[in-house]
Amino acid sequence: MASDKTDHPLERLVFFSDAVFAIAITLLVIEIHVPEIPYRAPAAVYWEALAHLFPSFVSFAISFGVIGMFWTGHHRAFSLAGRYHGGVLGWNLMLLCAIAFMPFLTALYGRYYGAPVPTGIYWAWLVLTALLNLKVNTIATGPLMLGEGAAPEAAADVRRRSRSVALAAASAFVLALFVPLAAPAGMATIPLWQILLARVGRRASAPA
Amino acid sequence: MASDKTDHPLERLVFFSDAVFAIAITLLVIEIHVPEIPYRAPAAVYWEALAHLFPSFVSFAISFGVIGMFWTGHHRAFSLAGRYHGGVLGWNLMLLCAIAFMPFLTALYGRYYGAPVPTGIYWAWLVLTALLNLKVNTIATGPLMLGEGAAPEAAADVRRRSRSVALAAASAFVLALFVPLAAPAGMATIPLWQILLARVGRRASAPA
Amino acid sequence: MASDKTDHPLERLVFFSDAVFAIAITLLVIEIHVPEIPYRAPAAVYWEALAHLFPSFVSFAISFGVIGMFWTGHHRAFSLAGRYHGGVLGWNLMLLCAIAFMPFLTALYGRYYGAPVPTGIYWAWLVLTALLNLKVNTIATGPLMLGEGAAPEAAADVRRRSRSVALAAASAFVLALFVPLAAPAGMATIPLWQILLARVGRRASAPA
Amino acid sequence: MASDKTDHPLERLVFFSDAVFAIAITLLVIEIHVPEIPYRAPAAVYWEALAHLFPSFVSFAISFGVIGMFWTGHHRAFSLAGRYHGGVLGWNLMLLCAIAFMPFLTALYGRYYGAPVPTGIYWAWLVLTALLNLKVNTIATGPLMLGEGAAPEAAADVRRRSRSVALAAASAFVLALFVPLAAPAGMATIPLWQILLARVGRRASAPA
Repeated sequence: MASDKTDHPLERLVFFSDAVFAIAITLLVIEIHVPEIPYRAPAAVYWEALAHLFPSFVSFAISFGVIGMFWTGHHRAFSLAGRYHGGVLGWNLMLLCAIAFMPFLTALYGRYYGAPVPTGIYWAWLVLTALLNLKVNTIATGPLMLGEGAAPEAAADVRRRSRSVALAAASAFVLALFVPLAAPAGMATIPLWQILLARVGRRASAPA
Repeated sequence: MASDKTDHPLERLVFFSDAVFAIAITLLVIEIHVPEIPYRAPAAVYWEALAHLFPSFVSFAISFGVIGMFWTGHHRAFSLAGRYHGGVLGWNLMLLCAIAFMPFLTALYGRYYGAPVPTGIYWAWLVLTALLNLKVNTIATGPLMLGEGAAPEAAADVRRRSRSVALAAASAFVLALFVPLAAPAGMATIPLWQILLARVGRRASAPA
Repeated sequence: MASDKTDHPLERLVFFSDAVFAIAITLLVIEIHVPEIPYRAPAAVYWEALAHLFPSFVSFAISFGVIGMFWTGHHRAFSLAGRYHGGVLGWNLMLLCAIAFMPFLTALYGRYYGAPVPTGIYWAWLVLTALLNLKVNTIATGPLMLGEGAAPEAAADVRRRSRSVALAAASAFVLALFVPLAAPAGMATIPLWQILLARVGRRASAPA
Repeated sequence: MASDKTDHPLERLVFFSDAVFAIAITLLVIEIHVPEIPYRAPAAVYWEALAHLFPSFVSFAISFGVIGMFWTGHHRAFSLAGRYHGGVLGWNLMLLCAIAFMPFLTALYGRYYGAPVPTGIYWAWLVLTALLNLKVNTIATGPLMLGEGAAPEAAADVRRRSRSVALAAASAFVLALFVPLAAPAGMATIPLWQILLARVGRRASAPA
């Protein structure tokens, strides 16, 4: 696949991860079951049955967006990596395990939408996933794996983005504890955390 | 994977998309459940039980063809793309989300085949998917991503085909509103729209 | 992926096909459901419950072998192909559709193992799949797609093998009509057909 | 994909295997079903319902780790392989079949966690899978397939690791027969077997 033999394991790791992300994101829909409706029922009965599934559609859409976001971050981090290092393997497997578990939590979340326990567990799991994601992306863009030609600002940007996602997931989890229905709004704070972290970073690196 | 580092993200995007298309198309069958039949029943009972599943087989075949068609279009558009551009990522994720949702709508469509609400929703969703598909393929064959060696006529052909698919899906949706059982015939209008759009295109580009 | 742009669509077609084969083969297991057993039941109750699933295990194993065999043939045929030709796309999609439908037929076959209708349908479907497989492999190793460096004997071997699989599936189908339980034995005739076809081929190409 | 045509079949074999590993590992979660809980039930009812699923979470985690471990070994063995040889195909398909069957055994194991029969079957299956894995990895790093530049110590290491996994699976199986709940601890003996095998290997290769 690659011209030099050495980053072959990196390609396979990326491929395997992409496959797990793609399968998990596509399996989300399996947990939404077709409702039982008398065949000749009037249209209103169909609409009502589908309205009952609305929370499942919402949790499907949230999880699709979240897994898509984690995949995008992984995609960016590993496009900067130029070498394979065995140290990323264990963390990456744990991240994939967290992602692979999401179809169950998504189904639980959608089925009991707004109930405190499923909502709290869902967002707590996202915090855990975001921390694993941060760890993996930090290794992939760190001294052990960063490609020679990769721009340091791009690596810094990937890490800042991963940290913002973790902080946004934590915000969503805190919201979930107090206002379960408002929890997804926590994910909308990603740009705020990015601006904040960029400012902190600039101040820290500024000459005293 | 590629000789130059720069289109690595393009390869991964294409790979991820292909994987979601492949998983969604293969998951369609999961929603068709084996019927309950007394084991020593005569052959006629088996045939009758399977005949009851016939609408599910039809909706499976329609969705297989439709997802296969979207994949083919995506395949053609991205084979012309030569560079990666971040602007396609969000639209592509939305297209994949629409595709990943199809196993549910296919099961709903097949279970209540001919009922107005499921039929209408199914074809309305296809119109939405076709519009996202048009958007993604337009970006992939547009100035931001088109490969240097790609023939402009090939790019124009991809777009015309994507527009024809969207118009055919809209035709099927209109049919679904009035004659639910005839809706799939709408997809057969693709070649008509292609001829029509080709004529309009030639007239528009002809010297006045 | 490839050094020259032209066989990029070939790579994507192969990738998409491999993914559908891999997903279909792995989805087979989903249709086998965990039996209901009282938790503190003695070991014999567990063994009996699992023994009831034995036909499902058999149909799983048969389908795994059959899909694996079709994948192997596809793998060999496309490793000889050197150029992409649009004419293979439609046939390949039909082959993949036949493969993607197999988890349902496998579940039906295993659930009513030995019953004439499911057994007949299963093996009739395999004949259809084998014919689509023969068509696709013939195009892939034919004048439109065969790679320049590919040995003509290798191409002839792929076609002979695809024909043998179709003849073996037809044998299994005929067996299924008369002795349902003996149908899988039909697949064991592949080597016989290969020897027979090789002889016929040699006689046909021998100078008069 | 590769610069020289000859290892194209190797790439496709590796790709297909990776896909089956990735699908099987992600399908594990499908067998965990969302519990039925009255919507307005107090938090304690939710926690209790989830606690009942705890054995399923444990079996999910064990199988995720185990499949991940087999994939890692496969990944290492095939990164050393430089040539394709048809002899690996059949064994590899059998290994993939064993892996593809794991979602069923994992669901059975989790549902009747600690019951002797499911526990014994699960770990016996792992012994079988580990032996197939050892066979495949031995061929991939053996004289028929080992790449020219591959270090012999790396090949020896892959084999030693595969043997340790098989011995650890056997230990877990023996534990499963006497103390079902302690069986997973058997997998923790992998490092012990690796040290032991390394010593035996050094003694065997030492000059007399």
